[in-house]
Amino acid sequence: MAPKDMVETYRLTIRPNPEDPRLTEAVSGIDQDGRPTSISVVTERPLTLFLNSREIVTMMTIGDFPEYLAVGYLVNQNMLKAGDQVLAVEYDDDIDTVVVRTAHETDFEDKLKKKTLTSGCAQGTVFGDMMERFDEIDLAKGPGLPASTLQRLLKEIGTTPSLYLKAGAIHGCALCRGEEVLLYMEDVGRHNAVDKIAGYMFLEGMQNGEMDASDLVLYTTGRLTSEMVIKTVQMGIPVLVSRSGFTAWGVDLARQAGLTLVGRAKGKRFQVLSGAERIVFDKKADHSDGERAE
Amino acid sequence: MAPKDMVETYRLTIRPNPEDPRLTEAVSGIDQDGRPTSISVVTERPLTLFLNSREIVTMMTIGDFPEYLAVGYLVNQNMLKAGDQVLAVEYDDDIDTVVVRTAHETDFEDKLKKKTLTSGCAQGTVFGDMMERFDEIDLAKGPGLPASTLQRLLKEIGTTPSLYLKAGAIHGCALCRGEEVLLYMEDVGRHNAVDKIAGYMFLEGMQNGEMDASDLVLYTTGRLTSEMVIKTVQMGIPVLVSRSGFTAWGVDLARQAGLTLVGRAKGKRFQVLSGAERIVFDKKADHSDGERAE
Repeated sequence: MAPKDMVETYRLTIRPNPEDPRLTEAVSGIDQDGRPTSISVVTERPLTLFLNSREIVTMMTIGDFPEYLAVGYLVNQNMLKAGDQVLAVEYDDDIDTVVVRTAHETDFEDKLKKKTLTSGCAQGTVFGDMMERFDEIDLAKGPGLPASTLQRLLKEIGTTPSLYLKAGAIHGCALCRGEEVLLYMEDVGRHNAVDKIAGYMFLEGMQNGEMDASDLVLYTTGRLTSEMVIKTVQMGIPVLVSRSGFTAWGVDLARQAGLTLVGRAKGKRFQVLSGAERIVFDKKADHSDGERAE
Repeated sequence: MAPKDMVETYRLTIRPNPEDPRLTEAVSGIDQDGRPTSISVVTERPLTLFLNSREIVTMMTIGDFPEYLAVGYLVNQNMLKAGDQVLAVEYDDDIDTVVVRTAHETDFEDKLKKKTLTSGCAQGTVFGDMMERFDEIDLAKGPGLPASTLQRLLKEIGTTPSLYLKAGAIHGCALCRGEEVLLYMEDVGRHNAVDKIAGYMFLEGMQNGEMDASDLVLYTTGRLTSEMVIKTVQMGIPVLVSRSGFTAWGVDLARQAGLTLVGRAKGKRFQVLSGAERIVFDKKADHSDGERAE
């Protein structure tokens, strides 16, 4: 499938599809009193990624959006860069492979030599230069984010039908702009979910300056670890929000990059440990009319 | 440090130490109303593992028990086997390295050639033969596990002072035997936590047949993914319990190996999707006198 076709294949606004029969299956068992039960369980299948003729990695994924996952993985590992031209992304569900074809060979081989296991999930293997662009990025500017907007986004994400609500055991990640939830991806590893968002942004040209990133907000169900902060900064997104907590190194890196880091975000409550000056305490809460406070 | 010394260095029963100043730090920020707050955040630091003279991997860890983490990582990747003799485990906190020295060189180099990213956390990189011993193991035998025992273990784990209760953003893993919680490890990645338990078991001889494994129970805060099931089976532990949910492949693998898989275990409630015949519904709940029902 050529990248340009994908725009038409998927809706521009993506939500989880808990009714997709490929993503969950009913499994029978018993409960604590010995009664028979049947519960929905998320699927988990291998996907082997090739960049041109080179095998890169095998990932475990729920299997939706393999093209976005493949491209986003390469983008977040710095194996694909803004200038690289993706000619095609070919997914073969018979053999669980996806091939990303680029116009020119990339310099990824050196990157394969060094790997670091991080405290994130799934794609927790970062290669030697995952941080090569990190120091160049300063996100500490741009418009303010009203607390009421953040609270409304949290409410929308939390009430959207999802695989998490249906089956649990899954991580979610959402890309928001202003008042709107643009994309909401889920996967068995939260790094798959964020990589699918990165792949979408790359293929739709959103990382090439065609989209103003200054009012983007990335939400994750996972913890705010160093790896999650690095990926968010490299995607150029100025605000990262999680219902989970922080790690100390994640906070340090966010402060270096001017990233606004919001954790323990549940209901109307949240904690900001980096970039708090971006938050506008407008006190409008849920009865806001939605206008931006700058 | 030689392995035999470690028995004396650490208590035989290990619990989290939320008061250890190396494991958390206080970070200041603001809350949803703009009020200043200070919250405890877990640390996350690199640890580079060497097997003899060969660099294997760099892990992100909270940093307690680096020796157990190092050995357990190698055990769970099948880079160390029951017969291998560990001469020394040398941790250097100045340069964040740990070196595991064995009596004979191991055959790990081939294992480094193929890696699979899994849906687990942190050490989600499994090498080509992580499952090489899986098919040989059948856990579908041994004594029954009373539901009341399981419920008491869950209560003890949930009420033990921990980094999770203090700071959140951490995974925990506990090894239980009969009515007793033997070990309770925490780390920023849950696979670090389970690897620390595997390292403890290896260094203390618990994997060499010196300990009856038939009444062991492994508890994890993380999801019951394929990787978690594979590790538990290879550790010879017949029961895996989580407060989180299941993935479909995790259930499949557990059924193949005869592993009792208990998920969504909170309070007195749980769901069993594999090996349910081991559970004895004794209805004694919390007022049990602790005797085993067979």
